[in-house]
Amino acid sequence: MSEATYPVSERSRVKRNHLRGSVERAAVHAIIDAAMLGHVAYVIDGQPFATPTLVWREGETLMWHGSAASRMLKKSREGLAACVTVSHLDGLVMARSGFHHSVNYRSAMCFGTARLIEDADAKRAALDGMIERFFPGRNAALRRMNDQELKATSIVTMPIEEASAKVRAAGVADDEEDYDHPVWAGVVPVTTVVGAPEPCPRVLAGFVPGPDLAAYADGRRLDEAVSETQRQYELDLA
Amino acid sequence: MSEATYPVSERSRVKRNHLRGSVERAAVHAIIDAAMLGHVAYVIDGQPFATPTLVWREGETLMWHGSAASRMLKKSREGLAACVTVSHLDGLVMARSGFHHSVNYRSAMCFGTARLIEDADAKRAALDGMIERFFPGRNAALRRMNDQELKATSIVTMPIEEASAKVRAAGVADDEEDYDHPVWAGVVPVTTVVGAPEPCPRVLAGFVPGPDLAAYADGRRLDEAVSETQRQYELDLA
Repeated sequence: MSEATYPVSERSRVKRNHLRGSVERAAVHAIIDAAMLGHVAYVIDGQPFATPTLVWREGETLMWHGSAASRMLKKSREGLAACVTVSHLDGLVMARSGFHHSVNYRSAMCFGTARLIEDADAKRAALDGMIERFFPGRNAALRRMNDQELKATSIVTMPIEEASAKVRAAGVADDEEDYDHPVWAGVVPVTTVVGAPEPCPRVLAGFVPGPDLAAYADGRRLDEAVSETQRQYELDLA
Repeated sequence: MSEATYPVSERSRVKRNHLRGSVERAAVHAIIDAAMLGHVAYVIDGQPFATPTLVWREGETLMWHGSAASRMLKKSREGLAACVTVSHLDGLVMARSGFHHSVNYRSAMCFGTARLIEDADAKRAALDGMIERFFPGRNAALRRMNDQELKATSIVTMPIEEASAKVRAAGVADDEEDYDHPVWAGVVPVTTVVGAPEPCPRVLAGFVPGPDLAAYADGRRLDEAVSETQRQYELDLA
């Protein structure tokens, strides 16, 4: 087990089709960094929940944000076992048999213990980090967060203990004897894209989207934009 | 509690900002029907997992598909408590303070007990349903699934016991005193779209995408396409 890979145990072993799986840190990071939205699985009194949330990465730590009122956040004060999954749907794979229909996708599943940030300075730094990670340079232009807002907000962090990535990025894979079956087969690509920015009706005269939004050009793939801002964020931190 | 809404208990009460929450069946259905991908949360030996999977709805039952080898499917033979969440990211809400940054989104969280379909006929019907639900009419054109494939595939069903929907679909909501802060503010829309179909290199001469792909026109929003195919599927069943 090298440092380039995550440790593997029963929970993180990739079981569904080994060919598509990886525990390489770079593979997991690339999938996380290309996303804004993740799903956090956790258990409260035996009941599993999957909560959607903005998720971002600082080194080997995942972070997410939420209102102080949520169930998960209360429990994560003492440390809460969690699984954070990030997924991208990339295409519909239309085969010649129902069995070989599939989707192209990228997903990363990360395991660890979620903990609420309690320290006020650490919380402010994390909240600033959330803005900077997606919109590099924007914090400096914003009205600074006040103490009341800081209290009303919560950030959860989860060091990644184990993680795995799964990717399908291929064409149709039919049984050899099916290729002459008379039906169209192929891949319908799916992408998530950014549209033209819609200014707040009360934006001050002369203000247009700044460098903090440069990555989010109209029509651009969101996964490319947020991967770029993550790289920028890491450069700015370094 | 009317039939138009799901029952509410501690697990399904919408806690984060009541204004955005709903337990109306129609609201939950609309969010599920607009998606292909969902995340299933479940617990095995105390460890939570969030597994991404294709998910579809038949009435008040969610269904998903997977390889017979997965952890979740083995456990769901005896019934496994699960939470299935479907989420759509619709926009990045750029406010004048870090605190009021947000995202526009639609999410539905559904609770129930996941069970593996064991009966062969029921399994075949469910697998056919999966194809028909997304690609109405396609089954008739496909090479029929054989018994070996049927054995190698698993479908899990989960009747929805409780569910809630959350939606944010609005512009920037800043504090009144911040509107004159000198920074651009607005919403950057995000959409997931279908691209031009990429034919399998071995597709037979003369075959083009058929009526089963009519909803997935190049450039169309995926959520609109799969909402339309769900309605078509329900009409075909009726």
